[in-house]
Amino acid sequence: MTINAVVFDAYGTLYDTQSVADVTEEAFPGYGDIITQVWRIKQLEYSWLRSLMRRYQDFSVVTRDSLAYTLRILGLHYDEETFARIMEKYLDLALYPEAMAALDALKDRKLAILSNGSPDMLNALVKNTGLDRVLAATLSVDEHKVFKPSPEAYTLIEKKLGVKPANVLFVSSNPWDACGAKAFGLNVAWIERVTPEAMALACVESESVPPLTMYKALRTQMDALGIEVDHRIRSLSELPKVVAFHES
Amino acid sequence: MTINAVVFDAYGTLYDTQSVADVTEEAFPGYGDIITQVWRIKQLEYSWLRSLMRRYQDFSVVTRDSLAYTLRILGLHYDEETFARIMEKYLDLALYPEAMAALDALKDRKLAILSNGSPDMLNALVKNTGLDRVLAATLSVDEHKVFKPSPEAYTLIEKKLGVKPANVLFVSSNPWDACGAKAFGLNVAWIERVTPEAMALACVESESVPPLTMYKALRTQMDALGIEVDHRIRSLSELPKVVAFHES
Repeated sequence: MTINAVVFDAYGTLYDTQSVADVTEEAFPGYGDIITQVWRIKQLEYSWLRSLMRRYQDFSVVTRDSLAYTLRILGLHYDEETFARIMEKYLDLALYPEAMAALDALKDRKLAILSNGSPDMLNALVKNTGLDRVLAATLSVDEHKVFKPSPEAYTLIEKKLGVKPANVLFVSSNPWDACGAKAFGLNVAWIERVTPEAMALACVESESVPPLTMYKALRTQMDALGIEVDHRIRSLSELPKVVAFHES
Repeated sequence: MTINAVVFDAYGTLYDTQSVADVTEEAFPGYGDIITQVWRIKQLEYSWLRSLMRRYQDFSVVTRDSLAYTLRILGLHYDEETFARIMEKYLDLALYPEAMAALDALKDRKLAILSNGSPDMLNALVKNTGLDRVLAATLSVDEHKVFKPSPEAYTLIEKKLGVKPANVLFVSSNPWDACGAKAFGLNVAWIERVTPEAMALACVESESVPPLTMYKALRTQMDALGIEVDHRIRSLSELPKVVAFHES
């Protein structure tokens, strides 16, 4: 089966969100890790809950609300400038080191992003990193006012790129996103990011792994949602091989 | 406005789920807390993700899958009997101490449960605790194959009890459930459970609150979903006062 389009999730897949953790640590020394973890849990929860409740607001609102919640429950006081500095980091993330070369190796296909991010967030990010010169489209779920993993979010790919699900390879490091795309009917490569936390878990046979490390590792493990993705890879560099496999 | 029906969430609202934490600690000494926390995060996530993905499976499946996930990522080995013993605890939870008296004080209204639990789970629970003699109905979202906070889940109240949303008081300790019920149009009392973890957070001004305590407190705090519930109470005993307020 020909792969005519390769579509990427943005946060955690093409873009490394670690620098957000760095800026929270800088703003609240000693709290960087727990802020980032609680914030991420709530950011995801709020996107799903708002979708279910039919109370969609775009991802910048959800991201802001979940950060405010996190700082409040941790009892941390802040001024507007600090808050804005953390939020701005989302517009200035770095690509994973292998991303540009991987995209270049796939350039004879249509390449696109499909992200929960708002159009403003995504456009800033794509422009800041020069991806606007490589991508055929940057798709935000905002057009359908519902977040991934809702099927309606993934319909944007065919609608905007004119490529049928069977001819799309969707790439995400987020297990719930990879499962959602597969449930919808796309070909899916899940990137299992080998973080230090995932390494620690892989070796766990004792009580030596601290709770915060376990929570950090939560997002790196495949979820038990009754869905099998097509490919498990470790890096974007493996994608040309995955595409070749599909077409062989 | 007359309140003709008072409808309760089950887990954490009428029933104290603490005994589940006790049995996980007994089965895996030193891990009880982290198992319970990760399990709960994933149990909720999977119910919402399956609803969004249109891959509904009932709550017993979601609860089992999320427990298996939790034990796997924590690197804990187990036999079927241990697993079954933990799962069974969900059928044998205790009512909160004030629950029976509170229900008795409201007995001139229709009383019901509306829960994400599967019919089997709920029926066992209600029978084991004698609530079958007090409740007009035990409603499971299973009938509509979608979990709370989907609006379709809350429509079961009018469908089964014949009481319009404006005449229903919905009671939940789960912030996302209270928000979902309010977004749907019910009158809502949110029970803010004053757990030791919530107390620790209320006093936090230093780094002395350990991460696990913070995660435990996550579920006791109102979420930032842009929804204001009607009443914030601390215990089921306050409900007669809430009903009187609505009818005054």
